[in-house]
Amino acid sequence: MSDKMKVVLAYSGGLDTSVILKWLGDNYDCEVVTFTADLGQGEELEPARAKALAFGIKPENIFIDDLREEFVRDFVFPMFRANTVYEGEYLLGTSIARPLIAKRQIEIANLTGANAVSHGATGKGNDQVRFELGYYALRPDIKVIAPWREWDLNSREKLLKYAENAGIAIDAKHRGGGAPYSMDANLLHISFEGRHLEDPKNEAEEDMWRWTVSPESAPDMPEYLDLTFEKGDITEINGVAMKPHEILAKLNELGGTHGIGRLDLVENRFVGMKSRGCYETPGGTIILKAHRGIESITLDREVAHLKDDLMPRYASLIYNGFWWSPERKALQVLIDHTQAAVSGHVRVKLYKGSVTVVARDSANTLFDQTIATFDDDGGAYNQADAAGFIKLNALRMRIAENARIKRGS
Amino acid sequence: MSDKMKVVLAYSGGLDTSVILKWLGDNYDCEVVTFTADLGQGEELEPARAKALAFGIKPENIFIDDLREEFVRDFVFPMFRANTVYEGEYLLGTSIARPLIAKRQIEIANLTGANAVSHGATGKGNDQVRFELGYYALRPDIKVIAPWREWDLNSREKLLKYAENAGIAIDAKHRGGGAPYSMDANLLHISFEGRHLEDPKNEAEEDMWRWTVSPESAPDMPEYLDLTFEKGDITEINGVAMKPHEILAKLNELGGTHGIGRLDLVENRFVGMKSRGCYETPGGTIILKAHRGIESITLDREVAHLKDDLMPRYASLIYNGFWWSPERKALQVLIDHTQAAVSGHVRVKLYKGSVTVVARDSANTLFDQTIATFDDDGGAYNQADAAGFIKLNALRMRIAENARIKRGS
Amino acid sequence: MSDKMKVVLAYSGGLDTSVILKWLGDNYDCEVVTFTADLGQGEELEPARAKALAFGIKPENIFIDDLREEFVRDFVFPMFRANTVYEGEYLLGTSIARPLIAKRQIEIANLTGANAVSHGATGKGNDQVRFELGYYALRPDIKVIAPWREWDLNSREKLLKYAENAGIAIDAKHRGGGAPYSMDANLLHISFEGRHLEDPKNEAEEDMWRWTVSPESAPDMPEYLDLTFEKGDITEINGVAMKPHEILAKLNELGGTHGIGRLDLVENRFVGMKSRGCYETPGGTIILKAHRGIESITLDREVAHLKDDLMPRYASLIYNGFWWSPERKALQVLIDHTQAAVSGHVRVKLYKGSVTVVARDSANTLFDQTIATFDDDGGAYNQADAAGFIKLNALRMRIAENARIKRGS
Amino acid sequence: MSDKMKVVLAYSGGLDTSVILKWLGDNYDCEVVTFTADLGQGEELEPARAKALAFGIKPENIFIDDLREEFVRDFVFPMFRANTVYEGEYLLGTSIARPLIAKRQIEIANLTGANAVSHGATGKGNDQVRFELGYYALRPDIKVIAPWREWDLNSREKLLKYAENAGIAIDAKHRGGGAPYSMDANLLHISFEGRHLEDPKNEAEEDMWRWTVSPESAPDMPEYLDLTFEKGDITEINGVAMKPHEILAKLNELGGTHGIGRLDLVENRFVGMKSRGCYETPGGTIILKAHRGIESITLDREVAHLKDDLMPRYASLIYNGFWWSPERKALQVLIDHTQAAVSGHVRVKLYKGSVTVVARDSANTLFDQTIATFDDDGGAYNQADAAGFIKLNALRMRIAENARIKRGS
Repeated sequence: MSDKMKVVLAYSGGLDTSVILKWLGDNYDCEVVTFTADLGQGEELEPARAKALAFGIKPENIFIDDLREEFVRDFVFPMFRANTVYEGEYLLGTSIARPLIAKRQIEIANLTGANAVSHGATGKGNDQVRFELGYYALRPDIKVIAPWREWDLNSREKLLKYAENAGIAIDAKHRGGGAPYSMDANLLHISFEGRHLEDPKNEAEEDMWRWTVSPESAPDMPEYLDLTFEKGDITEINGVAMKPHEILAKLNELGGTHGIGRLDLVENRFVGMKSRGCYETPGGTIILKAHRGIESITLDREVAHLKDDLMPRYASLIYNGFWWSPERKALQVLIDHTQAAVSGHVRVKLYKGSVTVVARDSANTLFDQTIATFDDDGGAYNQADAAGFIKLNALRMRIAENARIKRGS
Repeated sequence: MSDKMKVVLAYSGGLDTSVILKWLGDNYDCEVVTFTADLGQGEELEPARAKALAFGIKPENIFIDDLREEFVRDFVFPMFRANTVYEGEYLLGTSIARPLIAKRQIEIANLTGANAVSHGATGKGNDQVRFELGYYALRPDIKVIAPWREWDLNSREKLLKYAENAGIAIDAKHRGGGAPYSMDANLLHISFEGRHLEDPKNEAEEDMWRWTVSPESAPDMPEYLDLTFEKGDITEINGVAMKPHEILAKLNELGGTHGIGRLDLVENRFVGMKSRGCYETPGGTIILKAHRGIESITLDREVAHLKDDLMPRYASLIYNGFWWSPERKALQVLIDHTQAAVSGHVRVKLYKGSVTVVARDSANTLFDQTIATFDDDGGAYNQADAAGFIKLNALRMRIAENARIKRGS
Repeated sequence: MSDKMKVVLAYSGGLDTSVILKWLGDNYDCEVVTFTADLGQGEELEPARAKALAFGIKPENIFIDDLREEFVRDFVFPMFRANTVYEGEYLLGTSIARPLIAKRQIEIANLTGANAVSHGATGKGNDQVRFELGYYALRPDIKVIAPWREWDLNSREKLLKYAENAGIAIDAKHRGGGAPYSMDANLLHISFEGRHLEDPKNEAEEDMWRWTVSPESAPDMPEYLDLTFEKGDITEINGVAMKPHEILAKLNELGGTHGIGRLDLVENRFVGMKSRGCYETPGGTIILKAHRGIESITLDREVAHLKDDLMPRYASLIYNGFWWSPERKALQVLIDHTQAAVSGHVRVKLYKGSVTVVARDSANTLFDQTIATFDDDGGAYNQADAAGFIKLNALRMRIAENARIKRGS
Repeated sequence: MSDKMKVVLAYSGGLDTSVILKWLGDNYDCEVVTFTADLGQGEELEPARAKALAFGIKPENIFIDDLREEFVRDFVFPMFRANTVYEGEYLLGTSIARPLIAKRQIEIANLTGANAVSHGATGKGNDQVRFELGYYALRPDIKVIAPWREWDLNSREKLLKYAENAGIAIDAKHRGGGAPYSMDANLLHISFEGRHLEDPKNEAEEDMWRWTVSPESAPDMPEYLDLTFEKGDITEINGVAMKPHEILAKLNELGGTHGIGRLDLVENRFVGMKSRGCYETPGGTIILKAHRGIESITLDREVAHLKDDLMPRYASLIYNGFWWSPERKALQVLIDHTQAAVSGHVRVKLYKGSVTVVARDSANTLFDQTIATFDDDGGAYNQADAAGFIKLNALRMRIAENARIKRGS
């Protein structure tokens, strides 16, 4: 049995991971397995196969998987059940994709007898953490090769030089006017970092955005959607049932048309620095709003508040890469339990960058019109009860103030 | 010394509190003191004086106070330092005004030697709780008269009949096509409840809204604002220094013009029922966004997360009427402490219902471009550190997985 | 069909509930069903039947149920899975029994066609809340009769007078030297309130305690126990398998012998006042310690911390009577999920009032001796990783301090 | 100006740090400054001076500081204000000393113009993190030398060999029957790790313990103490005023005599592994109990609960080494604010390993005997109020159950 290393590389087919593919061979005595995932990033994947073959990867070592359904069903939707936002704003589009890539990479390592994995994330970002926490959690003896933390190609120039020497095709976008944005896309979002975004004083340029028109260019007529929820997940748009990833794709299209889901943020990375990112999450922005809408009539108050109290912690776990941790799973069990009755219909209005809930309805509604009414409720609620309720809620404060008065302080 | 009760009534001059004014005299052997506050609700207050006089209230028993500055400085701004929203959406416009009214009412009771207070909130809502918790906390021996919980005028018809008999002027809006919306306004917001909003399936009617144009009718050109923060509060708009209440008034005007700050919500009342409310909070919506923007570069990550974790609890305390409670004050001490360095500038864009942060800057910034850059950082950050960071963060999960494998489960 | 009310009374057979039994007949046109539960309080129940018959209750309206197993299995043990203590000290012995009594009372109401329930808790305590929240949650239309809040027998003298007139036997303990302690007992604990405990400056009298010897009188020899846990619950003592309630009874006996589980506390009631209580919880005190012991080697750190963070909230829910609430159930789902691997053995030492964990072991242990050792671990842990771990954990603080230095403040 | 490094070493005078002192000179071109702190560990410090001189350290480079008062006043007491325990049991005796050592080490670096610091903590433990987070937070450009993470003396044998070669005196305890316990002591506690404690199945040996007699050997007579609190800190024992560190020393003596404060624990380290430690914290154990006692009558319920909810997070921050972080400081501000009225007297009983609160009293008491009494309270509390209180607390559950019944599920 050979000691040769076998490495599963998360391979996009782009410049950076192509350089890594070459670099692995140059620096390690290893056999490389490439893994390319379709998470809805909107790029052709077959070119990645051709490139891998051109690098001498054996056909049986090339994995190209369509993970879109699993991604939305088992990662995106569970996350939205918690109304998850990081630092009040960010919908975690990148964070939520990493655990699935890590999981599939380890599965492929197990299938192919590989003992190492590699990825193209830098040593400054969150993604290295998200990938590697996944690797280690799912296969504790795995060897991780993170080229960006090892090599000396630590500037755009050196990387391009290396690519050139290796005969790797370099797109026009990588040449000329400085580095491109660092972008990441999947069915949930597309993100932008770097370039002039590195100064938080600079407004993002209009032509940076890809998935959404500017609100200014969006249609002058609002559009209404009827969304059907079952147990916390959207299952139908305007009465048409779809699979989870089809739902999200459709909402992205609709949201993008109406300029919905742009975000410009300075966020706190797990590795300890602040960074500035711009995000387009059209479908996710609609889901978040609509999900709060359906919960508003189907969830008990204290359950809703419990979820709100736990949400920032759950969001940080996902942001920091702890999807596969036991504490994330424990929180998920609670969250999923709360969604049993979160079914019904929400009507939202899309217009020039905004999504608004305008109506909600559910067979499980806890909204009791008889009790809530300003009109005579026929005795359903006894207003006199409120006096005692207030008296006892005030009691500890009255006792304290009485004590203060008594001791004259 | 007489046993006659002396009651300070929170008196708006409107129909309901005029009926209460009359009813108090009819049902209690008491002298009434009226208290009318200007919280920026946008109504003339002098008519309230005339009406009170007409009811026979002694001139020295009529209090009309302009509380706008105190309201924004000591209540609204402190609340926004915590990025406070209730149930993910509501900016607490009504909730935050009640503690100030209660405080002033007790001050007036102390000034005038009154031993009772009264208000016009119903027995089903949150406001009765907010008023009375304030009363009891500040003066534990106070007697509270809440006519809506006592009388039998529990329908609009009976109330109007009583008013008619008492010679109280009834506006057209109270007659004819059913009850009007139940509205409440102050410098922070205007709220709407009741009527056809009582069914959460019904979309709010366009002509209900008062402070904001519809996004559809807002200008086709965006407007940019430069907002200056000092210790968490906005002190200047476009470089012009203003008092807190002037800031909020100006932002209301600007936000309203651009259709910003509408909200349609089903919320959970403290008394145990769900209710549907619509709100316009144009200035507050801008403040919230901008405040998160300035915090994003001036606040430490863990301090920001601590605030996010505590925020829902703080919001519930305010919503439920516990402003004067010791636990709200303890949280405020923490929140205010965190704002020491939250100073700087935020640029926001207002456009057709949306407010977007596009740039932020601060002398206290914690954003370190040298470290965050994708380019060579000259050694400011050692990427190799990340390997150890990840390894130790993964350790407990690796040990657990190894243990699982070892016991073959 | 008759309009006559049918009331299920929680009937202990003691003086107070016997007075209530009589009073119900005197004050309501009602048929009474008595319900007496064996929760391990250590009293004969058959006398309650005889007394009920003597009051004219029909035999088919007398319910005497042994609920000991259900009590410990479905209430006590689930609570201990969370290491539950209220206000840092109290093991919730009374609180945890009330939901079961309420549930059974409603079941009996449903069985007998009753439309009302009644209990003997006063209007100042927590128990009224715990009973009634259970009633309302399980049967929202139930009518609740709480005699202590209605009648005028609001002093010990009046109550005794009423009993005398009604021919109710009065024990010696109720006569003579003032009121007895207010006591409550079940398999988990016995509690004492009232009398000279009402002043928190007074030390409890030695002869008050019932279940435990004083530590001073406990054996001079320690006793060791081996406790087996399965999924968070104790299933064996010294290798002998027992049912949940037998486990608790045995631990009470052992703990009592060694003077374990006394508590003297000033606690905060849900109704808003402080009260002083003394408690004996010998078995529960052992369970709590031992459970933390088994968790210490079988639970992931972050899961343990999540549980610790949520525990005070969970404890308050139980203390305040919200056992049947959806938020308690949601927390329970999380807690129970975490216990899947909490199995193994704990050795405890009982000695003169203290219980100490001295050893723990589990097939599921996460304690990895190879890694934890101070000796050479053969490379299982790379100490150099710690440098990077610390560097990145410190990064945000270094950036902040650098920024502070740079701006010279 | 020379490039020679100048290193401040935390130097105990013991074997390990003496080896480090030698090793630093052998491996770095540096000048060493030694810093030895008296934190009440109960060892003579002057021998450390002699040893340092013998190693050739210049007299002006030898710092021996008595930090006992500062330690207890500014670190231990503030921590106890929060009733801080880590993982339900551990009183953080080691954790709380590290930040002070780090602070003083940096002060000395600044005084002496040093640019590096060094410590004797291993690469597996928490102390390295606690030291270094302190260093970096207080002086971000400091160079840290952690010999245990660098050198190859990674076994007891190699270390002894190196010491022997260097002519460092080796105590008998380091020879013969295997490694000694790894111990750490200061005024708050003494800790034990290693040796046969490394297997959590092994009971600690009786002769390991140093500060406390076994409960079995403790006096047969209990001892009572009267403790005076001011703003959350103990200021007097039995009426005798003392400085903070004198208070703690006295309580250690008293507690030790009565066998109080032993703990045997498996805990979760920040670096990701579980470890087993034994601790003696006699004085701290008394303070914790007594502090909860005085808070029980002087703290508002919701403030107490807020503190309980935040405590585990605060404890983790200290355990993990984040004393100097902004989030710990923010929590401290809240905690200290709550202690304003936590003054009064607590009477505790010490007996054979247990400390029990038997009485408490305060001029600021919130315990209102008039209201709490079981006897007639003369109208101070209206029992009828409880009915409304319960009704509204139950409302959401009643509505939910009604809705469930209506839809027949």
